[in-house]
Amino acid sequence: MIDPSVLTDGRQSETALIVQRGTGRLLRALGLAMLTEMPLASGRRADIVALTDTGEVWIVEIKSSVQDLRVDGKWPDYRLHCDRLFFAAPPQLDIGLFPADTGFIRADAYGAEILRAAPEHRLAPATRKAMTLRFARLAAVRLHGLADPGLRLGENPL
Amino acid sequence: MIDPSVLTDGRQSETALIVQRGTGRLLRALGLAMLTEMPLASGRRADIVALTDTGEVWIVEIKSSVQDLRVDGKWPDYRLHCDRLFFAAPPQLDIGLFPADTGFIRADAYGAEILRAAPEHRLAPATRKAMTLRFARLAAVRLHGLADPGLRLGENPL
Repeated sequence: MIDPSVLTDGRQSETALIVQRGTGRLLRALGLAMLTEMPLASGRRADIVALTDTGEVWIVEIKSSVQDLRVDGKWPDYRLHCDRLFFAAPPQLDIGLFPADTGFIRADAYGAEILRAAPEHRLAPATRKAMTLRFARLAAVRLHGLADPGLRLGENPL
Repeated sequence: MIDPSVLTDGRQSETALIVQRGTGRLLRALGLAMLTEMPLASGRRADIVALTDTGEVWIVEIKSSVQDLRVDGKWPDYRLHCDRLFFAAPPQLDIGLFPADTGFIRADAYGAEILRAAPEHRLAPATRKAMTLRFARLAAVRLHGLADPGLRLGENPL
């Protein structure tokens, strides 16, 4: 049985941030470097993209409620931009709700664990190169904007 | 004639930060994404590494005084890690002090200009890939550390 409160809990944004934080700590502990809210070439935006030290690309989609999962009919698109695809969700969402051929991460505000490994689907070299460059430039520009608030980011967006 | 005050001005660090800021604004205006203080595979640390939208790698070495330039006997090493190499310096340092086969950027706290273009020496694909990945992961980890101060960066450094 699904707890009705998880369908639309009215705090999805806050829940998503909590899941993001815990997942970020897990990824970092595993040696990956992660970036949030990364626009992809397709126009969609990935919640979390992470790079391993060998250049493998992971995407983690955060779902804060059952409703959030049900309205997302386009998650398979993310596979085209990564080597491994995970969903991450808070403890109240059961792993059984999520597609069996994706990885699953259970997260709270302080950490997370991988409950199901993600199958590998290797990116083509050109796609990997483009994703890595896009990730690199976006992370650097965000950092630069924080270091120099006088930077006129709006004039020449990436 | 060289103004003696530029030999050791006692404020090299402050001057370097000013040059870094102005140079960063120039690079951004040119469409590059830049990262400061990036350790290279050789163990040296580049003052600024920047990526163009096509993945070209620029390195900019900041020199805040003549002394600073004279004690750096290893700058040619930087060529091995980029497609184009520049020096950047404050207005009181003359372009004639710098190696003629490198680019030169004159910078103050608010902006900069390229006074001499840098010759291109294309990186090997494997080196470019490694530099881009290293840049991407470092930028992302720094950003992550700012977003989540509770992250235990020390436990698993990149």
